[in-house]
Amino acid sequence: MSKTKKFLLPEAEIPTQWYNILADMPNKPKPILNPGTKQPLKPEDLYPIFAEELSRQELNMSDQWIDIPEEVRDKYMIYRPTPLVRAYNLEKALDTPAHIYFKNESVSPVGSHKLNSALAQAYYCKKQGITNITTETGAGQWGTALSFAAKIFGLELAVYMVKISYEQKPYRRSLMQAWGAQVIASPSMSTKAGRKIITEHPNYQGSLGTAISEAIELALQTSNCRYTLGSVLNHVSLHQTVIGLEAEKQMEMAGEYPDVIIGCFGGGSNFSGISFPFMRHTINEGRKTRYIAAEPASCPKLTRGVFQYDFGDEAGYTPLLPMFTLGHNFAPAHIHAGGLRYHGAGTIVSQLMLDKYMEAVDIPQIESFEAGILFAQTEGIMPAPESAHAIASAIREAKQAKEEGVKKTILFNLSGHGFVDMAAYDQFIAGDLTNYELSQESIDKTTGLLEKII
Amino acid sequence: MSKTKKFLLPEAEIPTQWYNILADMPNKPKPILNPGTKQPLKPEDLYPIFAEELSRQELNMSDQWIDIPEEVRDKYMIYRPTPLVRAYNLEKALDTPAHIYFKNESVSPVGSHKLNSALAQAYYCKKQGITNITTETGAGQWGTALSFAAKIFGLELAVYMVKISYEQKPYRRSLMQAWGAQVIASPSMSTKAGRKIITEHPNYQGSLGTAISEAIELALQTSNCRYTLGSVLNHVSLHQTVIGLEAEKQMEMAGEYPDVIIGCFGGGSNFSGISFPFMRHTINEGRKTRYIAAEPASCPKLTRGVFQYDFGDEAGYTPLLPMFTLGHNFAPAHIHAGGLRYHGAGTIVSQLMLDKYMEAVDIPQIESFEAGILFAQTEGIMPAPESAHAIASAIREAKQAKEEGVKKTILFNLSGHGFVDMAAYDQFIAGDLTNYELSQESIDKTTGLLEKII
Repeated sequence: MSKTKKFLLPEAEIPTQWYNILADMPNKPKPILNPGTKQPLKPEDLYPIFAEELSRQELNMSDQWIDIPEEVRDKYMIYRPTPLVRAYNLEKALDTPAHIYFKNESVSPVGSHKLNSALAQAYYCKKQGITNITTETGAGQWGTALSFAAKIFGLELAVYMVKISYEQKPYRRSLMQAWGAQVIASPSMSTKAGRKIITEHPNYQGSLGTAISEAIELALQTSNCRYTLGSVLNHVSLHQTVIGLEAEKQMEMAGEYPDVIIGCFGGGSNFSGISFPFMRHTINEGRKTRYIAAEPASCPKLTRGVFQYDFGDEAGYTPLLPMFTLGHNFAPAHIHAGGLRYHGAGTIVSQLMLDKYMEAVDIPQIESFEAGILFAQTEGIMPAPESAHAIASAIREAKQAKEEGVKKTILFNLSGHGFVDMAAYDQFIAGDLTNYELSQESIDKTTGLLEKII
Repeated sequence: MSKTKKFLLPEAEIPTQWYNILADMPNKPKPILNPGTKQPLKPEDLYPIFAEELSRQELNMSDQWIDIPEEVRDKYMIYRPTPLVRAYNLEKALDTPAHIYFKNESVSPVGSHKLNSALAQAYYCKKQGITNITTETGAGQWGTALSFAAKIFGLELAVYMVKISYEQKPYRRSLMQAWGAQVIASPSMSTKAGRKIITEHPNYQGSLGTAISEAIELALQTSNCRYTLGSVLNHVSLHQTVIGLEAEKQMEMAGEYPDVIIGCFGGGSNFSGISFPFMRHTINEGRKTRYIAAEPASCPKLTRGVFQYDFGDEAGYTPLLPMFTLGHNFAPAHIHAGGLRYHGAGTIVSQLMLDKYMEAVDIPQIESFEAGILFAQTEGIMPAPESAHAIASAIREAKQAKEEGVKKTILFNLSGHGFVDMAAYDQFIAGDLTNYELSQESIDKTTGLLEKII
């Protein structure tokens, strides 16, 4: 008992400001474009889709710190600060000289880090007098988080849930309904975008890209309604920086500083959250730290995609975003890490990749589940299949440290737990899961369709 | 942000000793009897079934405090101390002058308080050189906890899971399997007790009583194997006192002392855990505090059962226990709070009921789910259907405080979360749940079968 396992902060240490890495980046991301005029967007252009304050945050390149409203901090108190944990048992199982820490965002009542931005987005919508919001959800983590956030701030919410998840994850749907949200399987007949896809591909199992199209369409056609998104966008990454800001203080309590920081990667929300606050020391003070985005091998936009302007959704309703992408028509394999099945990376992360501030690895599905089970059997927590990608990457780093005989401090973000994803573990234990080989040809096919703007 | 929501203790404040209320009780429970000879049992008589140290703890009437082994405390560090939380949002929704606190045991990595005893039991078995253990599980909370505890201490585990839960809660089964346990639906063909019931009642959906019979039988017939139990027994209540011991310090941090303390009630493990440490001040110093066990109305042993010697299991393999019981042949309705579907109360709690140190209420199923949803929508945490009974009782107390216009401090134990129980909430939201009326006739029928020893 002499060693500390969990590093805890008091509630007074919940950050009072989010960190806006845009202000510090030596090369800003290229502008977001109006797809018709190809002109850079101003915040006002986003007002019909997003709450005004969120639109301003999205394009704020100058303020390094943005105040967290008291009402949001008050709700953060429900679960924040989250613990930083030293994974002694995992280290022992790996027989590694590396020290492994994880930030445990799975203690959020909705089971993942997604609540950090959901509360902020619901708050700003409410404050503006908006009564209805829409969103999409893949794995269900974002939809669950927003359902609770909408309920607690008194908003009506409609969630388009990717059809395959709707069917594979009935408990996720139940959670959203228990928190009062309306949940619709996507593609649905309730939107033009949905009807078009259903007509052309009657058995289509849905994708995040399609669900986003439907949610935006509904928002635009409903009075006093806005759309919200759980990843990819700059303001989402901004809100998630509470993760890294807390972790920074907690690593100090542990008397260490991470050599490598890892987050799983879908659109970038949890990776940004754990990384950006540390990265400000790399950008501003030249501190040497490695930042690793852990992608699924079946959806590898950072490791195998192209950097190009692309739509954020399948139907092409969003502005054009400069990003690493597999093409908005890319149909990712039906891996169980549904939250990582997205064709593109956020614009900030994409620019940081270009500027070599960070790196990416791709993890085969089976390696991710092996890592998840080892983590559960040593540290006790059943990780979300998404988070298992970060664990797998951390395990690779820890094994390398052992091979090289060097001490290394590894920090990864445990973005969520897997209690609602046990069907996936069932299949893994039964030996029914496979890796998905992704041919260069199929990547070329969807990226080849992109209009060349860069 | 001036008010504190979560009261946290550092790891150094994890209790170093469990509190043994048996030492303080003015009237000790009547002795446990050998069913053949009707003679009181000595610890040695229990050695074939339980680890020796657990057998001694079971009958220890003299030591007020029992040291927690360092190896167990070391594993407690994974999740303990758990937070004490002020339920401000629930208070607001109820518009009550009452202050409501809950001890959040749902943050345990297995999702409930059950890990507090699972770790202790697995440790003592391992220390004695035992290689295999067996147990039963109803809702799956205990089986899940023991699966992780067995894995981390290196024991092989077989779990008999009540058949209806096995089928209704596939994710619970998956969790146990992910942690390496063998899970068998009960009744099964693997034991004499199981075969007998299947032969007589081919469609029997199982009960905790039957699953206990099977687990004991397998333990007795397997070399170097012992049985473990997640509730009812004295040593389980002992281990669970870490809950109340921490809560006592945390209430002090909050500057309040509870007027009423509430736990849901199946066999008594979490109720004992939250109550006993506070009750020592009632017993020893006359401190006025109310202690409420919240039962399901469909399985009301404390409110409507008889005080009588009875078996702990359906087949009659256990010693005779002096307890409030509905009769070991009582077949509780298939309510979703599977962890509360047990015919009897532990001997300590039964004696405390007789001596009027505590009280009990019974909660209809629908009231429990209404309470669960209100809690989820205000405090964010989806409670286990079992824990929702404690919430319902706390809400009754808070409403009463409002009616009477008095300030009251309420503390309840949130024994677990409901992420793996969403099918139940689905049915509730769909309006498909009912209350179960339990006739006096059916209680008389099973209690009338009991051999009259008291």
